Amino acid sequence: MIFLLGAGGYIGRAFQRHLVRHGVAHRAIRRTELDYSEPSRLLAALRAERPAFLINASGYTGKPNVDGCEDHRAECLFANAVLPARIAEACASAGVPWGHLSSGCIYQGARPDGSGFTELDAPNFCFRAGPCSFYSGTKALGEELLAGYPDVYLWRLRIPFDHVDNPRNYLSKLLRYARLLEARNSITHLADFVPAALSFATLRPAPGIYNFTNPGAVTTREVAAMLAAAGLRRTPFVFFADEAEFLREAVRAPRSNCVLDTAKLLAAGISLPPIHDALRSALARWEPDSPTP
Amino acid sequence: MIFLLGAGGYIGRAFQRHLVRHGVAHRAIRRTELDYSEPSRLLAALRAERPAFLINASGYTGKPNVDGCEDHRAECLFANAVLPARIAEACASAGVPWGHLSSGCIYQGARPDGSGFTELDAPNFCFRAGPCSFYSGTKALGEELLAGYPDVYLWRLRIPFDHVDNPRNYLSKLLRYARLLEARNSITHLADFVPAALSFATLRPAPGIYNFTNPGAVTTREVAAMLAAAGLRRTPFVFFADEAEFLREAVRAPRSNCVLDTAKLLAAGISLPPIHDALRSALARWEPDSPTP
Repeated sequence: MIFLLGAGGYIGRAFQRHLVRHGVAHRAIRRTELDYSEPSRLLAALRAERPAFLINASGYTGKPNVDGCEDHRAECLFANAVLPARIAEACASAGVPWGHLSSGCIYQGARPDGSGFTELDAPNFCFRAGPCSFYSGTKALGEELLAGYPDVYLWRLRIPFDHVDNPRNYLSKLLRYARLLEARNSITHLADFVPAALSFATLRPAPGIYNFTNPGAVTTREVAAMLAAAGLRRTPFVFFADEAEFLREAVRAPRSNCVLDTAKLLAAGISLPPIHDALRSALARWEPDSPTP
Repeated sequence: MIFLLGAGGYIGRAFQRHLVRHGVAHRAIRRTELDYSEPSRLLAALRAERPAFLINASGYTGKPNVDGCEDHRAECLFANAVLPARIAEACASAGVPWGHLSSGCIYQGARPDGSGFTELDAPNFCFRAGPCSFYSGTKALGEELLAGYPDVYLWRLRIPFDHVDNPRNYLSKLLRYARLLEARNSITHLADFVPAALSFATLRPAPGIYNFTNPGAVTTREVAAMLAAAGLRRTPFVFFADEAEFLREAVRAPRSNCVLDTAKLLAAGISLPPIHDALRSALARWEPDSPTP
């Protein structure tokens, strides 16, 4: 049986849909029902129900985007750094292995040779190596606080997308933004991520950090061209002249744009489709948003 | 009437003693009695009792010293950054002005000309400008999270001491450590700080950050000589050869040693005795520890 925290969020809902569809025994916990931010309450539930694995899909990402974190810093810091450490304490005490939704948005750019950052590279877009968004700072602090816990997986997603139109879906965002920033990114297809993450519960690779994007990287212009080719956008996309214009006119906090290396994930026996295939797959079965369950 | 949070700590007790001695109406709140980390509960209490001022003397400093914070990062981050922001929300909603115990330990050294850091200097011993201790990182984050709230004073103490022997008292620490590190510091005499901080409730200078040490700076060797001259230490003090030896052999996290400028405090009409006078005053009436009330 699997405990799922944060089942009300974009990624939490994707986990829950998968668990339901595949008949996997689970308990989707919302904080209104069981306040898992209280370590003693979470620990009691873990001891009473003895889940084989826990997934923490809770977190604070800001609405409508990470700029929202700049106005809700305490909530963001609590949800992305303090809370994961409390969950770690409870899981360690109960002996429950678990996975945490971390983020690759604690890097900027790529390695000097253009290759992706590995799990051994220190974050370069965080409080300790700024500038960064407050969101990215808290996610990197969350990773720091989880270091040393024995049985936790830190799954670093980036810019999640899937085939269902939704305000949290990267593809929907590109369709709705007035102007786009050209950048090269590693990104994560939820339809590939969710089953792969769940396989950690049975495969049990070595604990620690895993970059969890589809292999490779894609530019905003490439994705825009695919959206247009799929008939999802009639009018041309408009791009910012450069990042300076983007930062000046469109956003408050700087944004992470980066490439991640996924060799560690592959070495753990977990293979995701290359990013361009994943994008084509999502666009081939594009659906309008469905109501939140 | 004054609300005092964290009345069980070293500085909170000093506030409470002063309030009791001077017959100032107050309510000393411990979290076991009213969980002020829940914004709604604190807000309800503020609205029900309408204090004229609130003092947040709660915080996580680590035991026996800041190295303890390295092992309790989530607790430290919560107490020093998330909690103050929650208090700020409640105080802003209730229209209650308040003072927060910040720390000058978010700086290292002095300005290039040897003068102290002012409130306008960016911290240089924090997550954003490392290396730092985890403690200092969280205190600086706490200051960030309080920026922009309309009616809060951030009082930057450093290395508090008073005339009563106590494990949290800097003078007691020097007497008990096996070896000392020579360094130059601005430090805070609690007997001067507490009434001065309380005067903020009536004087109401401009909100914001105030360096709150006794004016000037003092070296460890100077304080050690004063302790010896006061007859509190029979055997000679032993010093580390240099900071490298200190960091290698005695501590886990790097330590802040710094000089602060106190002109802003003075300009607000609040004058503290020079640090050497304050030290002589504390040593002249040195007392063994008294039991916690």
